[in-house]
Amino acid sequence: MAEYMVALRKLEEQFARLEGVGRKSATRMAFAVLEMENEAAEEFANAILEAKRSIHLCPVCQNMTDRELCPVCSDLYRDHSVICVVTDVKAVMAMERVKDFRGVYHVLHGVISPMNRVTPEQLKIKELLTRLEDDTVKEIILATNADIEGNATAMYLAHLIKPLGIKVTRLAYGIPVGADLNYADEYTLMQALEGRRDM
Amino acid sequence: MAEYMVALRKLEEQFARLEGVGRKSATRMAFAVLEMENEAAEEFANAILEAKRSIHLCPVCQNMTDRELCPVCSDLYRDHSVICVVTDVKAVMAMERVKDFRGVYHVLHGVISPMNRVTPEQLKIKELLTRLEDDTVKEIILATNADIEGNATAMYLAHLIKPLGIKVTRLAYGIPVGADLNYADEYTLMQALEGRRDM
Repeated sequence: MAEYMVALRKLEEQFARLEGVGRKSATRMAFAVLEMENEAAEEFANAILEAKRSIHLCPVCQNMTDRELCPVCSDLYRDHSVICVVTDVKAVMAMERVKDFRGVYHVLHGVISPMNRVTPEQLKIKELLTRLEDDTVKEIILATNADIEGNATAMYLAHLIKPLGIKVTRLAYGIPVGADLNYADEYTLMQALEGRRDM
Repeated sequence: MAEYMVALRKLEEQFARLEGVGRKSATRMAFAVLEMENEAAEEFANAILEAKRSIHLCPVCQNMTDRELCPVCSDLYRDHSVICVVTDVKAVMAMERVKDFRGVYHVLHGVISPMNRVTPEQLKIKELLTRLEDDTVKEIILATNADIEGNATAMYLAHLIKPLGIKVTRLAYGIPVGADLNYADEYTLMQALEGRRDM
């Protein structure tokens, strides 16, 4: 039957495009949409458009926000002299759950990866360097994942930033090598924060 | 951060509403949408609306279709005197994969379930009885699942249809082909025993 319904196949494809959604799950979700009331489906479609419309990158830290500046960058009680550099927005959320960290963030939106053809120019590194120009930043904490690409990106950044006379540290103990920061528990993250070392 | 972005939370909720999608998956999918290009997100939203707009229930068998009649009901080479009654649209797809069945379908869109407050009136039973009025139907195959609610629904339908002088059959339930007897659950074994045949 499905082969006759173009619109169903197209909807399945849309779901299947999402990270981590397999073909069977995509079919299940497409059917769930078809079984919704019309109003519920419209709400769903609007939620997609509204999220895209209202959420953009914070011009300072490149985190996602629906305000002019993100809540961290606009928070005067945070320590703006310490910048924690992370790979993606989910990593900011993971760090924020720790509550111990009072500095601010910078989101790279990726890691340097020759395999996936990601060059430093494609990451938000220019924007990070611009933030370092006003001499108020004292420390950069590199919190990329502890895998090969995350380490390489950290090394690359350390080489760029250390000559500016800014302290550069790296998250350390607790994050298992090869693991994704987003799946680290809060205790492990806290340990990693405390054990950060000069690079 | 997420707590500040209403639109992100709303989109997460939309994904979490879909059958079988947990909270973490919903968050992951919502982020995937945010990371899409604007055009891709619009395409996604449109796919939802277009699927809802173009796909409706076949007025005869209640299967989903984007045509006036579904392909099975409009196929003159199918045997319209044999109707296989199934619980949902996915069951039609499962049956169609077998290719052996040349009859037509009727989709109930649920099972009778006092637990979930589903009464016979909420199912497409009226529509099934209407199809039986023109005296061309010779057999009804009840293909609801072999669980308590599926069996109760089959019993209910058999009681309604048999007095009309139409043959009513039920799919054979038992040990799946190729399965190990030792791993069959008791209920399945009981069904298999009850349905035993002379050799």
